[in-house]
Amino acid sequence: MGTPSAGTPLTVGNTRVKEARKLSRRSVRTERRLFLADGPKAVEGALSVDCVVEVFATSHAADQYADLLDGIDVTLVDDRAIAALSDAVTPAGVVAVCHHIDAPLEHVVRASPRLLVICADVRDPGNAGTVIRTADAAGADGVVLGGQSVDAYNPKTVRASVGSLFHLPVARATDAAEAVRAAQARGLRVLAADGAGDLDLFDADLSGPTAWLFGNEAWGLPEELAALADERVAIPIHGRAESLNLSTAAAVCLYASARAQRA
Amino acid sequence: MGTPSAGTPLTVGNTRVKEARKLSRRSVRTERRLFLADGPKAVEGALSVDCVVEVFATSHAADQYADLLDGIDVTLVDDRAIAALSDAVTPAGVVAVCHHIDAPLEHVVRASPRLLVICADVRDPGNAGTVIRTADAAGADGVVLGGQSVDAYNPKTVRASVGSLFHLPVARATDAAEAVRAAQARGLRVLAADGAGDLDLFDADLSGPTAWLFGNEAWGLPEELAALADERVAIPIHGRAESLNLSTAAAVCLYASARAQRA
Repeated sequence: MGTPSAGTPLTVGNTRVKEARKLSRRSVRTERRLFLADGPKAVEGALSVDCVVEVFATSHAADQYADLLDGIDVTLVDDRAIAALSDAVTPAGVVAVCHHIDAPLEHVVRASPRLLVICADVRDPGNAGTVIRTADAAGADGVVLGGQSVDAYNPKTVRASVGSLFHLPVARATDAAEAVRAAQARGLRVLAADGAGDLDLFDADLSGPTAWLFGNEAWGLPEELAALADERVAIPIHGRAESLNLSTAAAVCLYASARAQRA
Repeated sequence: MGTPSAGTPLTVGNTRVKEARKLSRRSVRTERRLFLADGPKAVEGALSVDCVVEVFATSHAADQYADLLDGIDVTLVDDRAIAALSDAVTPAGVVAVCHHIDAPLEHVVRASPRLLVICADVRDPGNAGTVIRTADAAGADGVVLGGQSVDAYNPKTVRASVGSLFHLPVARATDAAEAVRAAQARGLRVLAADGAGDLDLFDADLSGPTAWLFGNEAWGLPEELAALADERVAIPIHGRAESLNLSTAAAVCLYASARAQRA
């Protein structure tokens, strides 16, 4: 089991708990380069990449996740304190304060990726986390959160990634166009997912190294960014639906690539 | 523009507004066989299938969506009343009370579908709506919400379907097994989406009439239901992700079918 700190559990008024709680704000996360990994799956991922600064747990969770927390210093907190640190409706009882783990853009691109994801202006934190999870499952080599995208450390993003945030490099690019050009410079074909694109996804040759470019949930890709792509690719819409949502569209594109690349 | 009712806008205390508001509860929806279509996209869908009982709108929205509401009797309400009727953080200003539009299971199955979706115990309303939207986009002929699934008329389901609830028949089957057997009786091959399945999605022959069976977000398909399927099909997981979420998994499966069926 974990190595709990001595003494009574910390309460919500404790300074360490209060400081950790501030990491729910993006400005504080960015300034301190810290974030919260909430729940056993996220804490497991964080421990696996050695980015954990401190683990908070209730005594119940410290018992329940004794295997996970084996040999780890655990700061015991009470139920109200863990609820304050957790974004979940039903907190799992264990939250880790972690160092940021962004990979530099050059690092992600230089590793000769075969499949890369570049998000531009993805604003919903759950979507960003789901795209990271799906990219991992489809075997992508990295994800770039570009432009005005949410940060990868938003609690909802971390949760929706279900550990995948720790499995593949996630880079930040204030200018998404820079990521597109960097990918092209390394020989990747950049495909813009664009409902108005003239190349049908299932007619596209996806066998080579590919970077998928996904835009905002509501307004898609800015024209000047889409124009940089090598192709604009549309998922065929067969019924009367107008479009797919961002995370399902990304799943269809990324798995089309995964299938072509293994063939 | 719409035909607004005479007089001042109704307030949140008005009896008709209060009665309509009760439709946010499943028990009331089921008893009255009514539901709320919130926002212009949903109202447009509802009008297209002629299931609208009454349209509530703010005077601002009645102007803004004048084309949509052309020739329709509109009951004007104030901002607080529309907020009470809407589940959205930022209400669009127009909400319709609608009759239920479930198709009977026999109707959905008897139409010789080529692609059908059967959900068992899908509990998240947003997931159910996204699956309906994706099924529509992939060209599916119908969706069955089976077992303990959410009802199709949950406000979050209606919203996430972005109009697709009105585009293809959605049936309810208290016993999901009944839907599976009905599909098989009509010559459909039932494929259970199952992470532990031994047939790889991309090795499966998906060219014939197919019904996809999707389980609960957390625990998947009950064993006795999965056992009824003709095959258990797994989406290959390439990275270190453990799985995909329900709506992305459904998108990958349904688009694999759409692709195979058009080839």
